[in-house]
Amino acid sequence: MPPLLLTPGPLTTSDRTRAALGRDWGSREADFIALSEGVRARLAMLAGVGRTHVAVPMQGSGTFAVEAAVQTLVPLNGRLLVLVNGAYGRRIVDIAGRLGRAWVALEAPEDQPISAERVAEALAADRDISDVALIHCETTSGLLNPLPEIAACVQRAGRRLLVDAMSSFGAVPIDGGRIPFTALVGSSNKGLEGVPGVGFVIVEAAYLQGCAGNSTSLSLDLFAQWRGFEANGQWRFTPPVQVVAGLASALDQLEAEGGIGARWARYRHNCELLVEGMRARGFSPYIAAADQAPVIATFLVPPGGWFRFQAFYEFLHARGVVIYPGKLTGVESFRIGCIGAVGADDMRRCLAEVDGFLAEHRNGWTAA
Amino acid sequence: MPPLLLTPGPLTTSDRTRAALGRDWGSREADFIALSEGVRARLAMLAGVGRTHVAVPMQGSGTFAVEAAVQTLVPLNGRLLVLVNGAYGRRIVDIAGRLGRAWVALEAPEDQPISAERVAEALAADRDISDVALIHCETTSGLLNPLPEIAACVQRAGRRLLVDAMSSFGAVPIDGGRIPFTALVGSSNKGLEGVPGVGFVIVEAAYLQGCAGNSTSLSLDLFAQWRGFEANGQWRFTPPVQVVAGLASALDQLEAEGGIGARWARYRHNCELLVEGMRARGFSPYIAAADQAPVIATFLVPPGGWFRFQAFYEFLHARGVVIYPGKLTGVESFRIGCIGAVGADDMRRCLAEVDGFLAEHRNGWTAA
Repeated sequence: MPPLLLTPGPLTTSDRTRAALGRDWGSREADFIALSEGVRARLAMLAGVGRTHVAVPMQGSGTFAVEAAVQTLVPLNGRLLVLVNGAYGRRIVDIAGRLGRAWVALEAPEDQPISAERVAEALAADRDISDVALIHCETTSGLLNPLPEIAACVQRAGRRLLVDAMSSFGAVPIDGGRIPFTALVGSSNKGLEGVPGVGFVIVEAAYLQGCAGNSTSLSLDLFAQWRGFEANGQWRFTPPVQVVAGLASALDQLEAEGGIGARWARYRHNCELLVEGMRARGFSPYIAAADQAPVIATFLVPPGGWFRFQAFYEFLHARGVVIYPGKLTGVESFRIGCIGAVGADDMRRCLAEVDGFLAEHRNGWTAA
Repeated sequence: MPPLLLTPGPLTTSDRTRAALGRDWGSREADFIALSEGVRARLAMLAGVGRTHVAVPMQGSGTFAVEAAVQTLVPLNGRLLVLVNGAYGRRIVDIAGRLGRAWVALEAPEDQPISAERVAEALAADRDISDVALIHCETTSGLLNPLPEIAACVQRAGRRLLVDAMSSFGAVPIDGGRIPFTALVGSSNKGLEGVPGVGFVIVEAAYLQGCAGNSTSLSLDLFAQWRGFEANGQWRFTPPVQVVAGLASALDQLEAEGGIGARWARYRHNCELLVEGMRARGFSPYIAAADQAPVIATFLVPPGGWFRFQAFYEFLHARGVVIYPGKLTGVESFRIGCIGAVGADDMRRCLAEVDGFLAEHRNGWTAA
């Protein structure tokens, strides 16, 4: 039996999504062009910006799409404010630095959301900031940053907002009609429940229009990629056709489930079962309930020295439950995902295996 | 029934390769790490350089891997000689120009191989040239450039050679033990017969070691990608796990077929059937037989005005045979591929459909 992946992606996909990978496509054929166009249109509509923005898919992992967005959308003489409370915020700093874009970071502890007030202060204090980059859900910890408040504040200050919504898009409703953003970056293999291989940037068409020549990369030039799609519906360079077909099927299934609102409800239920179940077993969540995204939960390594993560991981793994093999936060912790084609029964199965581990390993230890 | 793709990739894959796409993988799990390591080791061995070079896979299309190679391997103060006789040579010029690398092009007509003598002259005339980029098989036309002769000449001149072997790797034997190169770039979905989504660079480890800091791109930094694999066997950023699994299966099937030599023989037979069959039907090949790679064949649009490519393409397409929908060469021509999980019967099927088209369209026209 294939493993149950409770990871932040690649994640557990449905049989139907994987079945959609099973045919060949000519990437310049009318049927594949129609498939790609359908995916692009639906992505923009899912973000609530079908009239103003365009979805530009990009081959590669989500980071490739983030880099394409920074490279193409932040002007050469711009300055990027990066809001950092985890590894993915730091990654945008790394990208901007390598690309030679001026940047400044506003940091918060990994378990604390970035507050809109601090963003407003930073923007008021530095008039040269042209763009703001925000990680919506910091997959490092599972923390949800306050996108609506920050987006409003960036708009009031007359700057552009680039949202890294990698792990939140599809998992958490984002209504671009009410939440102003210039660009939002997502991936095929998180809340949309496709397989990995494609990222995308949903970007304001009127702004993208003026972004020719910003990118020093040919492959990651979002403007040129967009012009290619507009010219003939084709990807400039060979797309991962099966991955795109999987994403198209996954979007069909998202609609059949009732859209992002229904998926959000399923994920919240998954997350609640997981967090409450782990709490009842003596594990403290790292993120306060109010700031927890229903994407991935981080638990502190319990005190007392009896808990060894590697043994825990291997115990679950041997029983077909795969959690993320390592930590990203500064504190001793581990993570369990709750997104993908998984439901309440899968969460209960995971907790039952945790019980098995505890029965073997927590001799003499009691929850505080 | 799925279409028969006679295109330069994405191409027709085997049922077994597509079946290998049908499961989920955790990208940081031991089994996926082993899968990736196996692919990397086999790629380097297939190029005959398992002892000196390392294979570094890169997410995205083949162009992403080419850009990663130029970005990471051509020093910031280097100068790249690009050998150009088609669209893919011009693409490397475009990449180098955007990246701000100094470059110079040596051009030949699209139906003429680049000669080693001209390369030797160019290298003798410009001592600042540090690196030479060669397209092994120019997929624009199907022309095979003389890699062994050019590699020897570049080595004699003490420069580095970067080979874009996108459409030739797996299709044509390349023995790195006799043909010196610093780097060779390939893709999952050409001669290796996997699905698209991953490229790779097979690069001399001793040279790559010194290439830290060259890449201004985080995603396309081949050095960092390599260090990541060396550190823990993992991809730095989410890999397209199903695509990698498909490639692993495709490599198993390549071995079972008898290796690249056996595949080369099958492709040569395909190409011969195709070229001779089309010639017998009055279509002239664009490339001389001696320079034709058994990858894709270009045919001149016949004179007389009766042949409309769009009608030809649609006639074949309606009968399940998909050829490349467009031309890349400067002359009026069209292309039919002969690589992928296809054999003599598929070539004959294509020719039979061509007969059907000719019976309907070539009224009163006779071959010269």
